[in-house]
Amino acid sequence: MWHKIIECVPNISEGRRRDVAQAVADACAGAGRRVIDLNMDSDHNRSVITIVGEPDGLLEGILSLAEKAVQLIDLHEHHGEHPRMGSVDVIPFIPVRGVTMSDCIELSHRVGERIANELEIPVYLYEQSATCSARQNLATIRKGEFEGFANKIVLPEWHPDFGEPQIHPTAGVVAIGAREFLVAYNIDLNTSDLTVAKEIARAVRFSSGGLRYVKALGFPLEERGIVQVSMNLTNFRKTPLLRVFELVKREAERRGVLVMGSEIVGTVPRQALYEVAQAALQIRDFSSDLILEERIEDALNEDC
Amino acid sequence: MWHKIIECVPNISEGRRRDVAQAVADACAGAGRRVIDLNMDSDHNRSVITIVGEPDGLLEGILSLAEKAVQLIDLHEHHGEHPRMGSVDVIPFIPVRGVTMSDCIELSHRVGERIANELEIPVYLYEQSATCSARQNLATIRKGEFEGFANKIVLPEWHPDFGEPQIHPTAGVVAIGAREFLVAYNIDLNTSDLTVAKEIARAVRFSSGGLRYVKALGFPLEERGIVQVSMNLTNFRKTPLLRVFELVKREAERRGVLVMGSEIVGTVPRQALYEVAQAALQIRDFSSDLILEERIEDALNEDC
Repeated sequence: MWHKIIECVPNISEGRRRDVAQAVADACAGAGRRVIDLNMDSDHNRSVITIVGEPDGLLEGILSLAEKAVQLIDLHEHHGEHPRMGSVDVIPFIPVRGVTMSDCIELSHRVGERIANELEIPVYLYEQSATCSARQNLATIRKGEFEGFANKIVLPEWHPDFGEPQIHPTAGVVAIGAREFLVAYNIDLNTSDLTVAKEIARAVRFSSGGLRYVKALGFPLEERGIVQVSMNLTNFRKTPLLRVFELVKREAERRGVLVMGSEIVGTVPRQALYEVAQAALQIRDFSSDLILEERIEDALNEDC
Repeated sequence: MWHKIIECVPNISEGRRRDVAQAVADACAGAGRRVIDLNMDSDHNRSVITIVGEPDGLLEGILSLAEKAVQLIDLHEHHGEHPRMGSVDVIPFIPVRGVTMSDCIELSHRVGERIANELEIPVYLYEQSATCSARQNLATIRKGEFEGFANKIVLPEWHPDFGEPQIHPTAGVVAIGAREFLVAYNIDLNTSDLTVAKEIARAVRFSSGGLRYVKALGFPLEERGIVQVSMNLTNFRKTPLLRVFELVKREAERRGVLVMGSEIVGTVPRQALYEVAQAALQIRDFSSDLILEERIEDALNEDC
């Protein structure tokens, strides 16, 4: 059993040829890491590979995966809706268990250095790993995409964090960084009025004055005849789920609308739900020691 | 790693002689089970041993533990505040992971049969394992205690479920059964008026018309100058924590009082907190598949 678990979700620029995406995912195989999902998107022509592992195992796995992607994916022949700048476009590391954000930042540096040295791909450190605030945002780094990067990379302010200021001829550049787990969270409203969903999205999202770690849009759910506030919560520790839910609910009520239900898309870390329970029940002095299964696991691990 | 985990919390009639209680707990050692806590109470002269394990490992461990308790604890010499009828007084089994209540009931039968045959202690099946409604309640079975049981056991309606209708000369009888995890949950109120806590306890507890699986009392917290509703939730699946909390909160508000906070005493199963989060966020179609760590564990176990 692993004591330290980090999640890594590399995005590769191939979402149509299953054999290629599968070969890239398979290249990751080995001790200390496990591929748990491969999600291909043909419109975006992009795949998301979900891997979990211990830091050292993950390092080797990601190196092999990136090497295979460079061999099989030539960006000159790549077209899709999603912006991209590399064969392996982005490699985010997310703390899951027994590790801190600092551990993930450290791992991102080690992976970045080796990818630059061994595969000759220039590396940009982004999000929590960024070396300056201008590089925190992935979209800012990626601006210009593969086609524009040969010119962008020579600008002094866009020299890479690892590697030479010269793109890999077929594989471009890659962004590597540590970030918090992203929770995709949608709330359904009992109205068909899209204006209400859009107004609430505007009220709760960071970009228009809302909560710091919330991105939100209003969507119609045509089949069910209702509307939805669709959100990405980019830091559930600092902007917790229950606070987001309560704010959406209040904004809805003030418009004569009720929350019908909500959904988690993909997965949510255990800790995010513990924090909802802790807040909803007003539990004082909450810690994972209070949880039966954590206590059992601790006891079972004690003399391993 | 164990795939099926049952918790067992035998209560033994020795809470003063540490060497005796420790020897009984130690007797449980072996593959497939682990003692995770030994809690001695000298006023009650009683100890609670917390053990987790797989069904078969637990069976053997409990047999060894009971055998040691019979060797070392003579009820003729036992005095304490807590009612008791046996050296090993009660052996409850609680489903934790990968097992159902039926599995726990089955295990309680297997343990009961062997304790009756091998140790010659009469066994009463109680709670979910009870063979008739009169034996569901432990207090009803225990009435008369060790001193009165020689006469009680010969009554046809009190013949044991396993073993002969004759108490063990020094070890008495034992109750064995499967039950849900018991959550000890207290809610603090911002008043020093004990009447309010007592009224709310009466309103929410089963015995006086409240929720089915709630036992409650009102207590003063002298040091903090406030009062507390102290509860045992005997089935968190059927009477969930959030419903209990909301009811206490409403009853307090109607008396001009607010909830200051709450506390879990001991531990709470993960599932109980997931259900709080699910209800608080109104999550549709909630399942453990939504939880990152569960998905990771499933993936890691797949090819074991």
